Amino acid sequence: MTKQQLFENIKKKQSFLCVGLDTDIKKIPPHLLREEDPVFAFNKAIIDATADYCTAYKPNSAFYESLGYKGQLSLEKTVNYIRRNYPDQFVIADAKRGDIGNTSEMYARAVFDNSGFDAVTVAPYMGEDSVKPFLGYPGKWVILLALTSNKGADDFQLTSGTDGERLFEKVLRKSQEWASDEEMMYVAGATQGKLFADIRKIAPDHFLLVPGVGAQGGSLAEVAKYGMNRQCGLLVNSSRQILYADPTERFAEAARREARKVSEEMAVYLRDV
Amino acid sequence: MTKQQLFENIKKKQSFLCVGLDTDIKKIPPHLLREEDPVFAFNKAIIDATADYCTAYKPNSAFYESLGYKGQLSLEKTVNYIRRNYPDQFVIADAKRGDIGNTSEMYARAVFDNSGFDAVTVAPYMGEDSVKPFLGYPGKWVILLALTSNKGADDFQLTSGTDGERLFEKVLRKSQEWASDEEMMYVAGATQGKLFADIRKIAPDHFLLVPGVGAQGGSLAEVAKYGMNRQCGLLVNSSRQILYADPTERFAEAARREARKVSEEMAVYLRDV
Repeated sequence: MTKQQLFENIKKKQSFLCVGLDTDIKKIPPHLLREEDPVFAFNKAIIDATADYCTAYKPNSAFYESLGYKGQLSLEKTVNYIRRNYPDQFVIADAKRGDIGNTSEMYARAVFDNSGFDAVTVAPYMGEDSVKPFLGYPGKWVILLALTSNKGADDFQLTSGTDGERLFEKVLRKSQEWASDEEMMYVAGATQGKLFADIRKIAPDHFLLVPGVGAQGGSLAEVAKYGMNRQCGLLVNSSRQILYADPTERFAEAARREARKVSEEMAVYLRDV
Repeated sequence: MTKQQLFENIKKKQSFLCVGLDTDIKKIPPHLLREEDPVFAFNKAIIDATADYCTAYKPNSAFYESLGYKGQLSLEKTVNYIRRNYPDQFVIADAKRGDIGNTSEMYARAVFDNSGFDAVTVAPYMGEDSVKPFLGYPGKWVILLALTSNKGADDFQLTSGTDGERLFEKVLRKSQEWASDEEMMYVAGATQGKLFADIRKIAPDHFLLVPGVGAQGGSLAEVAKYGMNRQCGLLVNSSRQILYADPTERFAEAARREARKVSEEMAVYLRDV
């Protein structure tokens, strides 16, 4: 998917919501455990319920890996289901990968060749040659960690270099030598509030994937205020707040209500774009 | 496995070799493709051939993920095979994981609860709360990326902070507030040569997992000279050089020869430990 196509989808839907599929088998409604593949059954219901109100889905690899090869199967079925039924959705593998070249090549093959993902989250610690193997797949995206939503972001990302540049700023600047805003996005945590203005100084035109709204406490209004650009430039993720809005058989309706609520707030921020 | 047990195994075997199971289905001898699970068949033969000469195995997650759920099955069978037949071997999930707390918990569950790994490699970019969920499993280890073997290590790991401390040094120092040398090791690339002396200034007693000898060009002699401590403190990985020493049906014998050759060199360096 191109940047322009993603922007068109956002305008059409009036939503830049990304639904995070952090599906925890211990949290899904108990009646689903009778299904052959409870995780897929849950995802399918969530996707059907929310697709009208979001532009992206982001399965979180860890939750599937924790179930061994069966989890991998559930994940593959989920991605195929989105691809087949909602081809306009942007599908992100939230995997935070990154390794030496020949290994990153294998990770890239896993998400882009074997699975139908549009994008993968990548950790920058190992530098250029750990990121490059994910680039160059036509229409596919790298979403590089810049400034994350968790408390631990302070430990290294916010430390300053001798040149006064903080590590997340160095990542934003340096990585623009590797790829343009047509194939790279950045992760910027919603909990970072006004730091979005600093991010936009270095990366004015990039899309940002923004976790941390909802359960983690970030403010959508603040993200929109400091982070939005002329092409929206935001995909704001919500996971737990939508997935587990209701613990009963009515979970999908509740998820739909939550997704609609978020997207209605987003529509307001999109008025001027 | 405790640190003391690992050291005992190294002394017994006279080897601190870790065989990296970066099994690429495109590189294994063609006759194995007739097997029901070619990747597992290859690994099994490699393990049986090399177990006398190594103290650790390190399956590289990417290579299995690139094959979808079938790869995950091959990986699980491989780990179970080592556990059952060679219980003294230290088994490392080379996965370079790291995410917000609730997600890292899932990754930890995947490698420690569901699979019988002794250790997992973790990326430090997201800080303390992304690493902590991997700690506290009795006898299990986190191996944190500090200074990696690839060229991209220059991009961020070697940049200096306002305090003159380079990022990899900050990671080494800061992470010692989170865990002791009884449950944390560090990745230090063999290609970094004399920087091992700098690493040992901050982390004198930790074990280091050292990739980059062999195909990547690092020198075992230099690693031993600058990196070894009183309890050896080194696990030196070799992957391609051993796995693909011979492309024919005699691949396992060739792998055994290569592993023996490396371990014989290691035995010399171990004389004074």
